[in-house]
Amino acid sequence: MSNFPVYYEHIHTCSQTGARLGRVHTPHGSFMTPAFMPVGTQASVKGMSPEEVSDMGAGIILSNTYHLWLRPGSEIVAKACGLHSFMNWKGSILTDSGGFQVFSLAKPKDIVEEGVKFQSHIDGSRLFLTPEESMRIQNDLGADIIMAFDECCPYPAEYSYADRSQARTTRWLDRCIESHKRPDEQALFGIIQGSMYPDLRKKSAEAITARDLPGYAIGGISVGEPKELFLQMIDCTVPLMPEDKPRYLMGVGTPDYLIEGAVRGVDMFDCVLPTRMGRHGTILTDHGRKIIRDKRYAEDFGPMDPGCGCYACRNFSAAYVRHLIKANEMFGLRLCTYHNIYYLLNLMQRVRDAIANDCLGDWREEYYKNYYGNQD
Amino acid sequence: MSNFPVYYEHIHTCSQTGARLGRVHTPHGSFMTPAFMPVGTQASVKGMSPEEVSDMGAGIILSNTYHLWLRPGSEIVAKACGLHSFMNWKGSILTDSGGFQVFSLAKPKDIVEEGVKFQSHIDGSRLFLTPEESMRIQNDLGADIIMAFDECCPYPAEYSYADRSQARTTRWLDRCIESHKRPDEQALFGIIQGSMYPDLRKKSAEAITARDLPGYAIGGISVGEPKELFLQMIDCTVPLMPEDKPRYLMGVGTPDYLIEGAVRGVDMFDCVLPTRMGRHGTILTDHGRKIIRDKRYAEDFGPMDPGCGCYACRNFSAAYVRHLIKANEMFGLRLCTYHNIYYLLNLMQRVRDAIANDCLGDWREEYYKNYYGNQD
Repeated sequence: MSNFPVYYEHIHTCSQTGARLGRVHTPHGSFMTPAFMPVGTQASVKGMSPEEVSDMGAGIILSNTYHLWLRPGSEIVAKACGLHSFMNWKGSILTDSGGFQVFSLAKPKDIVEEGVKFQSHIDGSRLFLTPEESMRIQNDLGADIIMAFDECCPYPAEYSYADRSQARTTRWLDRCIESHKRPDEQALFGIIQGSMYPDLRKKSAEAITARDLPGYAIGGISVGEPKELFLQMIDCTVPLMPEDKPRYLMGVGTPDYLIEGAVRGVDMFDCVLPTRMGRHGTILTDHGRKIIRDKRYAEDFGPMDPGCGCYACRNFSAAYVRHLIKANEMFGLRLCTYHNIYYLLNLMQRVRDAIANDCLGDWREEYYKNYYGNQD
Repeated sequence: MSNFPVYYEHIHTCSQTGARLGRVHTPHGSFMTPAFMPVGTQASVKGMSPEEVSDMGAGIILSNTYHLWLRPGSEIVAKACGLHSFMNWKGSILTDSGGFQVFSLAKPKDIVEEGVKFQSHIDGSRLFLTPEESMRIQNDLGADIIMAFDECCPYPAEYSYADRSQARTTRWLDRCIESHKRPDEQALFGIIQGSMYPDLRKKSAEAITARDLPGYAIGGISVGEPKELFLQMIDCTVPLMPEDKPRYLMGVGTPDYLIEGAVRGVDMFDCVLPTRMGRHGTILTDHGRKIIRDKRYAEDFGPMDPGCGCYACRNFSAAYVRHLIKANEMFGLRLCTYHNIYYLLNLMQRVRDAIANDCLGDWREEYYKNYYGNQD
């Protein structure tokens, strides 16, 4: 057992790849890892009910501090007794720190040691986010896992900037630890930065993991770099992360990135891909993406993804979903989103099964044969 | 038993009002009357899954011939084995004739004896809808109840125009009967017109009901006229409709209009009100409408409609739904729409209970006390 409100239970290591099967325990239940976390940016997984997300097998979702801070405001969520109660989600929740959104809105000169000045994307009002403020908001929201306020380095970044940035991320982590008011109920994860420089990744990993925290994340990758670099960064970072804590790879991703992350020992992932693609009428399948609004599906009366067991594929034809999307019917977006979230949750289940059976390497090879075949 | 695929079973007449409780039997099950039919314009009740609509207690939904004709096209629905199969709705379906939409798009000079010329609202293409074409499309769609192609008189209309119009509606009905290819599976309802002129209503009712059809509808009211006129038209039309057939009041409506229709012996109603209001973040309650996006609900952590037993009210607060609507989250519209459909279906259940207990007059008086109280 752990002193932390969130802890990692190791179950099995895949003899073929070294990937790990485990379980993360939180104050709102546990979930099997490697796990995909659907994103509910504004306290709602876009288009889905909490029951739908839960029935699909999600044990944890992610929500965004920045968005909830601006709307409805963290005080309102606190008055509603926290995010779980506010959105009626009975499973675990992770909130990010707001950093990722804020850095994309801020000018370089507005990033200072104290925090980040930026303008609201809603009304243009001037705001200031600091490690302390991020903790205050996340304490209000009350997620099971909260993230340290880190500096998100853009890609590409110069070495000297990336170094200063990762060092600041460590100093900010200490301020987060210092100002975190609910350590017995909410687990604070530190974030390893270092851009695309292996030695900075190592430096950051050593500094961040030197702080005794319930979990650690890899930030600042999957930000536009080539896949080789992405893999290299995971390869040089994961071995420096403790084995007895959950490892979270932020903002990932596509099926192949999820699989590569899992193979390398990552436990948790999140990405807006399934919801965003769903809203655009595109679905994920073992044979790549399908653009369901395409004319080729106009008279396809079979399921969107033959063989898929999800609600959308069991009950509706590709032709019907295409019609709904062409006609701007909300239900079409619901069905595509439902399928995509189900697909990624199910993909992680297949990854976990392969780990349990010591055959993740073989399974991956087989999966890629189809995946890199014909895409729409 | 009846020779028609759809027939009316009378259960009870309210001794206090004369309102009738019954059951309409169709090839896809039966439903209790007076009944509200949620509208699924484009083969989807906006935002809802078929299971949600069914679980709320809807036995029949309405879908629009005009919209499905243009998109995806009736041939595609026919190839999908009809609308029930296409949209996976297991209950009954009624399709309108397309007339209502077409008349709103056509210029007066384009309304001729043969049919109506108009331009598609999607791509501006020139189209021609006739009684025969409406029947062909509705036979393709395969709904349990199909509607005659009638001339929808605008309000206000001059007497001479209204008279010519109702006479043409009767001639068009004969062409519909003649061209209807599936009378053993689909019940064709005739539509009584006559604008706001009692003698024309009588003339039309006599002519339309002289045709032996499985059901009859009142068309051309609730088109902007004062409520008094609305009630007067129902009062002078319903008594001329056969007692052993379902009576359908088209495009109605608000709670008070539904109740007044039921009191006067109408069995079936449809309206886009609950879905349209839901999409704008407004809900129906016993105490009138509530604009949930209003600031007053920002910290209202109770249900949107206290005492309501619907999924939305049982599981989420007004504050949460308001947040979703302000943040343009699809799920907020789903919750408001869900509540509104549930509200009207449940309202009809309460009306049916009051009929069964011979107290619809008392119930109505009680209901109106709250209803005409404080509205948002």
